[in-house]
Amino acid sequence: MNLGVIFLSEMVGTAMLVLLGCGVVANVALVKNKGFNGGFLMVNIGWGLAVFSGVIVSFASGAHINPAVTLGLTVNILGKGGTEFVPGIPIDGASIFTYIGAQLVGAIIGAVFCWLAYKQHFDEEPDPANKLGVFSTGPAIRSYGWNLVTELIGTFVLVFVVIGFGFNGEAAGLASLGALPVALLVIGIGASLGGPTGYAINPARDLGPRIAHAILPIKGKGGSDWSYSWVPVVGPILGGLLAGWAALALLPVLA
Amino acid sequence: MNLGVIFLSEMVGTAMLVLLGCGVVANVALVKNKGFNGGFLMVNIGWGLAVFSGVIVSFASGAHINPAVTLGLTVNILGKGGTEFVPGIPIDGASIFTYIGAQLVGAIIGAVFCWLAYKQHFDEEPDPANKLGVFSTGPAIRSYGWNLVTELIGTFVLVFVVIGFGFNGEAAGLASLGALPVALLVIGIGASLGGPTGYAINPARDLGPRIAHAILPIKGKGGSDWSYSWVPVVGPILGGLLAGWAALALLPVLA
Amino acid sequence: MNLGVIFLSEMVGTAMLVLLGCGVVANVALVKNKGFNGGFLMVNIGWGLAVFSGVIVSFASGAHINPAVTLGLTVNILGKGGTEFVPGIPIDGASIFTYIGAQLVGAIIGAVFCWLAYKQHFDEEPDPANKLGVFSTGPAIRSYGWNLVTELIGTFVLVFVVIGFGFNGEAAGLASLGALPVALLVIGIGASLGGPTGYAINPARDLGPRIAHAILPIKGKGGSDWSYSWVPVVGPILGGLLAGWAALALLPVLA
Amino acid sequence: MNLGVIFLSEMVGTAMLVLLGCGVVANVALVKNKGFNGGFLMVNIGWGLAVFSGVIVSFASGAHINPAVTLGLTVNILGKGGTEFVPGIPIDGASIFTYIGAQLVGAIIGAVFCWLAYKQHFDEEPDPANKLGVFSTGPAIRSYGWNLVTELIGTFVLVFVVIGFGFNGEAAGLASLGALPVALLVIGIGASLGGPTGYAINPARDLGPRIAHAILPIKGKGGSDWSYSWVPVVGPILGGLLAGWAALALLPVLA
Repeated sequence: MNLGVIFLSEMVGTAMLVLLGCGVVANVALVKNKGFNGGFLMVNIGWGLAVFSGVIVSFASGAHINPAVTLGLTVNILGKGGTEFVPGIPIDGASIFTYIGAQLVGAIIGAVFCWLAYKQHFDEEPDPANKLGVFSTGPAIRSYGWNLVTELIGTFVLVFVVIGFGFNGEAAGLASLGALPVALLVIGIGASLGGPTGYAINPARDLGPRIAHAILPIKGKGGSDWSYSWVPVVGPILGGLLAGWAALALLPVLA
Repeated sequence: MNLGVIFLSEMVGTAMLVLLGCGVVANVALVKNKGFNGGFLMVNIGWGLAVFSGVIVSFASGAHINPAVTLGLTVNILGKGGTEFVPGIPIDGASIFTYIGAQLVGAIIGAVFCWLAYKQHFDEEPDPANKLGVFSTGPAIRSYGWNLVTELIGTFVLVFVVIGFGFNGEAAGLASLGALPVALLVIGIGASLGGPTGYAINPARDLGPRIAHAILPIKGKGGSDWSYSWVPVVGPILGGLLAGWAALALLPVLA
Repeated sequence: MNLGVIFLSEMVGTAMLVLLGCGVVANVALVKNKGFNGGFLMVNIGWGLAVFSGVIVSFASGAHINPAVTLGLTVNILGKGGTEFVPGIPIDGASIFTYIGAQLVGAIIGAVFCWLAYKQHFDEEPDPANKLGVFSTGPAIRSYGWNLVTELIGTFVLVFVVIGFGFNGEAAGLASLGALPVALLVIGIGASLGGPTGYAINPARDLGPRIAHAILPIKGKGGSDWSYSWVPVVGPILGGLLAGWAALALLPVLA
Repeated sequence: MNLGVIFLSEMVGTAMLVLLGCGVVANVALVKNKGFNGGFLMVNIGWGLAVFSGVIVSFASGAHINPAVTLGLTVNILGKGGTEFVPGIPIDGASIFTYIGAQLVGAIIGAVFCWLAYKQHFDEEPDPANKLGVFSTGPAIRSYGWNLVTELIGTFVLVFVVIGFGFNGEAAGLASLGALPVALLVIGIGASLGGPTGYAINPARDLGPRIAHAILPIKGKGGSDWSYSWVPVVGPILGGLLAGWAALALLPVLA
């Protein structure tokens, strides 16, 4: 195992995540699609199964595919006295940079393929806001402070429960199921905490596609809403760090 | 293992349950949310996955996160000649009080975080009944007697099947999957028996958030409907006790 | 293991199945319910999870909870040279009668509890056809011959795939998950083959509640549509027998 | 194991897939069905569980039930130095022809049974396009090039992740769950990439039912849209081959 494999694994996993995740939004939001107006639950399930597929193809690196998970695990593993993300990969600046860099690159790639798969529907969609909404999240009621709170809470739940999956013997049996528990968790977070901000809960998932939106020659696109772009980056990072720390303190120790 | 760990585990698990469970109702019921009017199935799935997440983070204490489960298990375990909830925790007044107290405290905490995550939507929601509905259940047709029957039947199913999960070898294999079976069960109970009363099926899940609703400075809130509040406490307790006893009598003994 | 345990197990399992299965129809079909007009997918998922719960509490008897499964397994097990439903219970007239009798009794009991859980909504529902629809199935387009074909095909799929679950080593690993695969199967059959007749695919599930509907003092009920009642009995029996035989012939033999 | 068993297994599995898959479209698209207008998510779930059932009954042959999977696995297994599809079945022209031929025959058979199950609803449906839509896919916006891109990307995801299921130790534990992961994957692909073309992602699933549509005496049917028919054959084949090759290159090697 080396950092090149980590980069490849996280890049492929995050690309898969974003291709399918942004894809379900495209299906529901862009005109003339067969899934047009398919509902919020369909979006939740689509994102959950996007995580499922992304995790399956990035097992080699531990399937973070989310900087908030990488940072939360950093705090948590180091706090428990561990030293490695996966066997052979010590936790240090180089590995953290590799994980997060690969996630961002993968997210951009995934967004490009989503655009290709829905090319004609992007072309025929009249509303620029719907086009941006396929790529990146935006708040239902704009208020940077409260939007940050919502993203922080949502990401806290994600990282706290993800750490819980691996915390004890019973959960370890669960973890061998691989990608299903985290997929269910993401469906649940979307349904339960996705209302106000559209649950980025992952800086790469939001920033990567926003960069793709800015760069790609999308017909009739509007701005990329950079003024909001820091919220779904900072909120998830704070939530992930806090969850990593809280899991140390709150998840009861089992023998 | 000691009662402090039990308290922490049940508190964290029930807080997670109520944060996500009340969260999905907020998403569907409060104006301007992205999941607004998302449908009853989405609420069922949201509550089921709230149970899933709550159970994951409270494995240490056996993940009751519901007084009706604690009481039903008390009857069932003692009736089978057992003496402990989990290894090292004998069933007695102190442990029962610890479980239920932690569940109630956790439910209040979860409701507060739900309110924070949806703060702006609570502020903009015009109907006080919708605000209360995020916190606590209320009947579709008010009739304390029949509402009690519905809650009793729903909770009976919950506790009876939960006991069934652990009853025999085949089910024990199932139990190692951890939180998934009970999540599916709660989705099913919601879909099938949630119509008349909104399926509290858990005294802490209903009373804790109702207390939070009474205390929190929610803009434009109405009353907390204390006249109904005993139904989703007494019904689930009766249903849980009955299920604990019925499981002794009805679940066939396997070698 | 004896026939008394078999009777108890199948009765409890089928009662659970019908309570939750008819319950989801009540929630969606009867006025003023919180799940009113919740959609066909919600009904499918509700019935699937009703099977899930019913199977969990009837593991002792092999969890048939459906005469078509009992008869299909009879043909299949005997055809493969087997002699027992579960260890200690030989396949003969007495055991078949015990299974099917218990299923019918359980279905009636489940329907009664469903009526109690939804008592006020039955009282306020103006349309007698909706009341009957909670208990028993009816065709979208009445034509006994084609309705029979649909029920036969649906039940064939049910019994054929159920036998497939236990057929080989890989599927045996699946079977240890217990009730989940058959729950998914029933959700799928409902979505895919439930359109024309409402997928009884189980004689007890249809006949038991129809008897309950005829007997119970339901306010403002109409007739019990006995002229159609033989279709969801005969179709599933034929489908189950055919599937038991076809599984012998078509499911490839593995070493 | 011999090619006759392979043929039988793939034929039965693909027939099950198409019966249930086309069935859910019939339920949602044809007039007077109980699931009429049930929504795109219901169609996604129906197709996912159709895959689930199809895979269960074709374990003997490895449950390809899709020429794109057969071809993608051919590239991938040979590229990794393997020589057999399943033990005893070498990868060569005869076995590839057997797999694909059986899949096509099975798809035709499944479509016939779907027509029988929904016979009266086909008869009463006024729109010929809805009738064809039950059998075969068609584009939301017709453009052979872009439709091909969408089908290629969708099938790439399918085959790439399917290969990922079996790629490492963790995923192998997942694979022992049998049919569930691929069912979830197909639900996800449908939700996320099914908008533009209705996600054939399987040449047999599209061509087989189209042949059935052309042959069957369906009342008031229109043309079978042969001009589009090559897209959902060529796109999935290209996507499958590309995924088999990409999995060699991109899925990181684990010890």
